Amino acid sequence: MQRKPVKVLVWDENASDVPTNIYPENVRGAIAAGLAELGGDTVEISTACLDDPYQGLPGLALNENEVLVWWGHRRHDEVTDETAARIVEHVREHGLGFVALHSAHYSKPFTRLLKCTGDLKGGWSDAEQPEEIHVCAPRHPIAHGVPSFTLAREVMYGGPFDVPPPDVVVFQSWFPAAREYFPSGLCWTVGAGIDPHFRSGHGHGVGQGKGVGRVFYFRPGQETVLTYFNPDVRQILLNAVRWAAKRT
Amino acid sequence: MQRKPVKVLVWDENASDVPTNIYPENVRGAIAAGLAELGGDTVEISTACLDDPYQGLPGLALNENEVLVWWGHRRHDEVTDETAARIVEHVREHGLGFVALHSAHYSKPFTRLLKCTGDLKGGWSDAEQPEEIHVCAPRHPIAHGVPSFTLAREVMYGGPFDVPPPDVVVFQSWFPAAREYFPSGLCWTVGAGIDPHFRSGHGHGVGQGKGVGRVFYFRPGQETVLTYFNPDVRQILLNAVRWAAKRT
Amino acid sequence: MQRKPVKVLVWDENASDVPTNIYPENVRGAIAAGLAELGGDTVEISTACLDDPYQGLPGLALNENEVLVWWGHRRHDEVTDETAARIVEHVREHGLGFVALHSAHYSKPFTRLLKCTGDLKGGWSDAEQPEEIHVCAPRHPIAHGVPSFTLAREVMYGGPFDVPPPDVVVFQSWFPAAREYFPSGLCWTVGAGIDPHFRSGHGHGVGQGKGVGRVFYFRPGQETVLTYFNPDVRQILLNAVRWAAKRT
Amino acid sequence: MQRKPVKVLVWDENASDVPTNIYPENVRGAIAAGLAELGGDTVEISTACLDDPYQGLPGLALNENEVLVWWGHRRHDEVTDETAARIVEHVREHGLGFVALHSAHYSKPFTRLLKCTGDLKGGWSDAEQPEEIHVCAPRHPIAHGVPSFTLAREVMYGGPFDVPPPDVVVFQSWFPAAREYFPSGLCWTVGAGIDPHFRSGHGHGVGQGKGVGRVFYFRPGQETVLTYFNPDVRQILLNAVRWAAKRT
Repeated sequence: MQRKPVKVLVWDENASDVPTNIYPENVRGAIAAGLAELGGDTVEISTACLDDPYQGLPGLALNENEVLVWWGHRRHDEVTDETAARIVEHVREHGLGFVALHSAHYSKPFTRLLKCTGDLKGGWSDAEQPEEIHVCAPRHPIAHGVPSFTLAREVMYGGPFDVPPPDVVVFQSWFPAAREYFPSGLCWTVGAGIDPHFRSGHGHGVGQGKGVGRVFYFRPGQETVLTYFNPDVRQILLNAVRWAAKRT
Repeated sequence: MQRKPVKVLVWDENASDVPTNIYPENVRGAIAAGLAELGGDTVEISTACLDDPYQGLPGLALNENEVLVWWGHRRHDEVTDETAARIVEHVREHGLGFVALHSAHYSKPFTRLLKCTGDLKGGWSDAEQPEEIHVCAPRHPIAHGVPSFTLAREVMYGGPFDVPPPDVVVFQSWFPAAREYFPSGLCWTVGAGIDPHFRSGHGHGVGQGKGVGRVFYFRPGQETVLTYFNPDVRQILLNAVRWAAKRT
Repeated sequence: MQRKPVKVLVWDENASDVPTNIYPENVRGAIAAGLAELGGDTVEISTACLDDPYQGLPGLALNENEVLVWWGHRRHDEVTDETAARIVEHVREHGLGFVALHSAHYSKPFTRLLKCTGDLKGGWSDAEQPEEIHVCAPRHPIAHGVPSFTLAREVMYGGPFDVPPPDVVVFQSWFPAAREYFPSGLCWTVGAGIDPHFRSGHGHGVGQGKGVGRVFYFRPGQETVLTYFNPDVRQILLNAVRWAAKRT
Repeated sequence: MQRKPVKVLVWDENASDVPTNIYPENVRGAIAAGLAELGGDTVEISTACLDDPYQGLPGLALNENEVLVWWGHRRHDEVTDETAARIVEHVREHGLGFVALHSAHYSKPFTRLLKCTGDLKGGWSDAEQPEEIHVCAPRHPIAHGVPSFTLAREVMYGGPFDVPPPDVVVFQSWFPAAREYFPSGLCWTVGAGIDPHFRSGHGHGVGQGKGVGRVFYFRPGQETVLTYFNPDVRQILLNAVRWAAKRT
């Protein structure tokens, strides 16, 4: 009784300033390698980037994949409104899963899916520092096999995080040097009849994954450090892809 | 080098339907007893209720105390706009700490302090069931000395919780029977120049306790069960009072 | 690429005083049902008991299975030395996995495999009370998918536990009513050239699963309560069977 | 109602190969500074070393202090039998608390108090590597205010650890590079009528702190890294001193 593999598309903005000694195949390459390492033949992975035709996201690619993983940092404005609209439609209408990484909190697909600014109200810092990542929902599938752990070097984001109330906080970060908290793993469900701020929801269970498309945000992922090679981060991303594809 | 005790006022709506075999001195009596038991001479506790003169909250009482603990359930509408306004002013302008318990998410002081509906977008249930409370910020003063624990009997709230993004999620609940999550311990800072939705905040550190008044919400506290006699809950409330008084 | 299922034999002493309203198919029935529920076709389960021919453990059964799960309480003395010797030989010489449950700490196979008394030096109590089970090794395969949790009703064991130093403590219990600790999930490796007290071991890695047979002890399992229907306990037992079979 | 400060003596072997850029006042200086930093006027700290008269431990010093903190690595043999016997007598007969650090597992006072070899049956490695320290007893006073955390650089010890069964395992380490576990925080009670292997204990509660002297072992503390400046380690040591003095 083999299940079909999860089809996932890993996209990045193909930034030219990503250090090639850390990410020789850009960030998308390391993310895809992590999914392949831990997921084996349970995932079917392809990659795309902003400089590909149709910005790497033709309707066909969105139709054929169950999950889109998104990493962008400096080129958010180059993503066209058409591209963003296509993604939003596929998530909200057709149930495409969307995994937003790090600076993607300011990306067009993320802010439009959730109808928020994505602002970091506690500020941020590019000074590399330790990030403690605490598991807040140990029974959630995205936390499966992942205890609280520390990334020795990351950049800092400070909460409050200007997003709609999530269904569940899976992880929360503490930056001991900056003395700031940030919700580093958040789940939402979006789509038909569900306002992203959940203000038109009614009755039981609106929030717990009963909507159309699943969205997960994961905070770490600065391109100047080795975050996407960390085994706990890799496990989280594989778990998130499976969850966004509604396999868990 | 003795510090002055924290002055705290524990208020409830003096509901007539609170079971007297569980809470013989109403809910406020059990909360006050818990603070006294663990806090000893580091806290100076008084109680008041909705049926007292000035609804138990004359300006004098608000001036003299550092923290107001609030429990209400069915009589939210009887709290006058004047009473609510007095509380909001003392928190936002003068730094009074505000600890909102359980159904207080729909109370006038809470929704006006945070400018939100306080809705439970995932619904709720009065069916008594276990509530797992997971520590999300183990280094936060409100979690000090409290591991993740389970209340055998509580009622269920389902997220998303329609409140502004918090500074930090200290606890999150999981209800295994209902399969629902809810953020059960949340901190905000409110006051001069800080929009409760933090959308006008600028720069670093807006969120981390640098505002005027501190607000903490704690979910458990159904009047039909023994929640306020639980030793972990009592420790959390004492920690919260100290935090809201800016002693930690 | 399907792996062969783990062959596991679940044995109990067929005690006549096990309440049939709780365990209608005796304890072994509930344990087997739990493994089947969560393990599906990845486990191949059979059961046996003390009143079966050869005390349920002919050499053939030991040859054919990879793991033996053992539950006994009052009939330890009826297990013959021959039966115990057969088990010890299969674990120490042939790598049979052995999962000892609850009162099995005083069983002949357990005490002879580990060459210890198995005494509860902090005493015990049959008064039913809550047991908090804390995860001590969140990355260990036996803890996979299991956070710290509470059993509302169990009996109490008090440490120190007179067994050889374990390879790893996977779980530790705290009984808040009795204020006692007990190591409730322990792993050892036994076999050729490894003294059970590990006093003749030399050099690196003696303890970490590099020996011949794997032994796991799990404390909860009083026959008067519903322990073996608890979903966390069931997950732990399935994890333990896989670990004892060297699949993880 | 001020309590008298805990009187604690911090001893080390005054090793000449401790790097002075890390520990300018040797290891004892950093430990004492940490206790003073967090303990303030609740602790009264003095230091001594192997090169002091009476090896730093005249009967007077043992009489006047409630707790002895011990760090030694290469000079265990220089500690005389007389010195060791004095310590053992004060712990077992008079209730002196004993906190043994790192390589002290091979020291004369430790092995004689517990009547064990203190062997590391899973080996060890001087290769610096991360050490994850997991809290196993979150309600124990020694874990108060300390979540699971990671030391970025330490040396590795592998279990099993050849010591008597402890009363409680407060912390357990996982070394991801070596894939080894070690119980890194252990409590025992020793003294009149209690065999260190607890094999002559009878009845309830022998193990839970009801004996004469309290012993705590804490694994980290390699002199080539900054362990004793880590804030979590400092909190653990202060907690341990208070526990060993029977203040918690």
